[in-house]
Amino acid sequence: MLKPIATGAGSCHVVITGGAGFLGVRLARTLLAQGTLSLAGAAPVVVGPITLVDRAAPPADLLADPRVIALTGDLNELLSSGRAGLDAHTDVVFHLAAAVSGECEADFDLGMRSNFAATLSLLEACRALKTQPVVVFASSLAVFGDAPGVPLPPVIEDTTLPTPQSSYGIQKFIGEQWVADFSRKGFIQGRSVRLMTVSVRPGKPNGAASSFLSGMLREPLAGVRAICPVPADTPVALSSPARTIAGLIGAAQASAQTWGPRTAMTLPALTTTPAEMAAALQQVAGPAVAALIDWAPDAAIHNIVKTWPARINARRAAGLGLLPDTSFEEIVREYIRENTDVIKPASAS
Amino acid sequence: MLKPIATGAGSCHVVITGGAGFLGVRLARTLLAQGTLSLAGAAPVVVGPITLVDRAAPPADLLADPRVIALTGDLNELLSSGRAGLDAHTDVVFHLAAAVSGECEADFDLGMRSNFAATLSLLEACRALKTQPVVVFASSLAVFGDAPGVPLPPVIEDTTLPTPQSSYGIQKFIGEQWVADFSRKGFIQGRSVRLMTVSVRPGKPNGAASSFLSGMLREPLAGVRAICPVPADTPVALSSPARTIAGLIGAAQASAQTWGPRTAMTLPALTTTPAEMAAALQQVAGPAVAALIDWAPDAAIHNIVKTWPARINARRAAGLGLLPDTSFEEIVREYIRENTDVIKPASAS
Repeated sequence: MLKPIATGAGSCHVVITGGAGFLGVRLARTLLAQGTLSLAGAAPVVVGPITLVDRAAPPADLLADPRVIALTGDLNELLSSGRAGLDAHTDVVFHLAAAVSGECEADFDLGMRSNFAATLSLLEACRALKTQPVVVFASSLAVFGDAPGVPLPPVIEDTTLPTPQSSYGIQKFIGEQWVADFSRKGFIQGRSVRLMTVSVRPGKPNGAASSFLSGMLREPLAGVRAICPVPADTPVALSSPARTIAGLIGAAQASAQTWGPRTAMTLPALTTTPAEMAAALQQVAGPAVAALIDWAPDAAIHNIVKTWPARINARRAAGLGLLPDTSFEEIVREYIRENTDVIKPASAS
Repeated sequence: MLKPIATGAGSCHVVITGGAGFLGVRLARTLLAQGTLSLAGAAPVVVGPITLVDRAAPPADLLADPRVIALTGDLNELLSSGRAGLDAHTDVVFHLAAAVSGECEADFDLGMRSNFAATLSLLEACRALKTQPVVVFASSLAVFGDAPGVPLPPVIEDTTLPTPQSSYGIQKFIGEQWVADFSRKGFIQGRSVRLMTVSVRPGKPNGAASSFLSGMLREPLAGVRAICPVPADTPVALSSPARTIAGLIGAAQASAQTWGPRTAMTLPALTTTPAEMAAALQQVAGPAVAALIDWAPDAAIHNIVKTWPARINARRAAGLGLLPDTSFEEIVREYIRENTDVIKPASAS
């Protein structure tokens, strides 16, 4: 049975794929909290309904919100049967659904279905609407990889050639190309943003090689030992959950002119190292918590992580007012403020 | 009925998609004439059979060659029914079949079928063989485009970021990504080469915006007036048919180590202008022939042509011994030598 949906003539209809995932849930909560959205440079209108499309159901607070519709199922199947929540009223689609890098590397065909085929089907569905919805496509830092014969430059610029070294990265980079051409053809108003590794992610470890970049903070803050599998001085590029969501919303809000080229925009990142992250943890939560990190280098993980870019000159993003986090300490403080399941250290603000 | 095929244990089985097209026919004739091929750095073996896959039948000389098999039909249909000539004996596939740029721009879905879907199906078919065939993918200079906000650099390097400004260019660039990832995964031995605009193409004008770059030579040499629709000083990057075929064969012959990165290799080009091309024509064929060129700028065509790169630093290709044509005059002389239907001017060598 459909629940009554709060909507109106001037409202902004939002669809979020992967809407029950960590970023999808946070994006939905942020949009609902701010209440309005200035889509593609237009005047602000009321947000709603927000349709969350995912295999899983979203959390109870979102299900209870009269502005939220939850559609559960396989995205490919929902799209092929026209039940993915897209219609002529859809104003903006945030396409976050994806299989993660480790999964795609282990199961090539899974990535082809979940990342490649689903993205193309979604774009074709948006094209079929003939209403040019805004489509914010979550691409990834993983489009960059240190390739044999094509070493990464020390700093990633907006015009750096991506040479993905994973199927996940290839599939994301191909998604960027579709978004660019569907935009050029006037089928959608595309906005591809390359997300950084998000830290600190709440919840559980996942199959991503980057999982430890949250785990080495999150687990100690819950009183649990955690492993850092790379050398302490390995440079990494990170973004807090809040800055990541700001990047997605900033992309949706940018006018075509402000947005600029149809190529993907690389979001800003804080460059840090596990040593600095551990020091920030110690500063904020005390030495006993920081001592829960086990430094146990794992060559397999280090070999992946060291091919990732660590320094980003996100010039285009800065033009939209999107800036990197100021310090990892601030990221840790934000995580502690937001998460009730951490063992609140005395020194935490 | 199958004709007897000349093959042996040490022979190199070749499949050419688009095998009845201009480049496919020339490639087949060249391979048959040289008789052997050193595939991916291995010792030379006898060439044959060569399977030509195309909608159209190849010319009579190829049909008559006992080393040639012709398969006619739609590539997508042939692939989906397992009749595209690929089997465990296939050593190398030259994937040349494509809808041209003008067609893809006018009919988006045609390009999606002919360039995108067919390429992915072909790669999946090669993967299913489990024999890691060499796949030479004909990409294109059209991956580069002068984009709003991302102007092309004055000279294209091997690491220049492609920002395709046509659906054809996007589809070719996506093909490059698949080839790279299928190679990285060990499904194929991929070799993506970006072909330049080929001049002088024999035959008739086609739907490509670049068609005039052959027509303004070919038509006058046949005693027919032709139009140059761009200003005489417009820089253009060209390659003769012979150098283009040398690039395709050079890619197939390169060892993995010589080939280097899995990114596409941009083939070399001669940078010239319509003014220089007309001067070369006059030099080789006389002023009466050159006077058959009508200089009638067409803003629509010029607006496309001026977004194409004109200067290429093909460093990787040079490492394989692939060099640009030395002069447009030499290109005109080659065309006259090879084509019996030109009005042979007294001065032609």
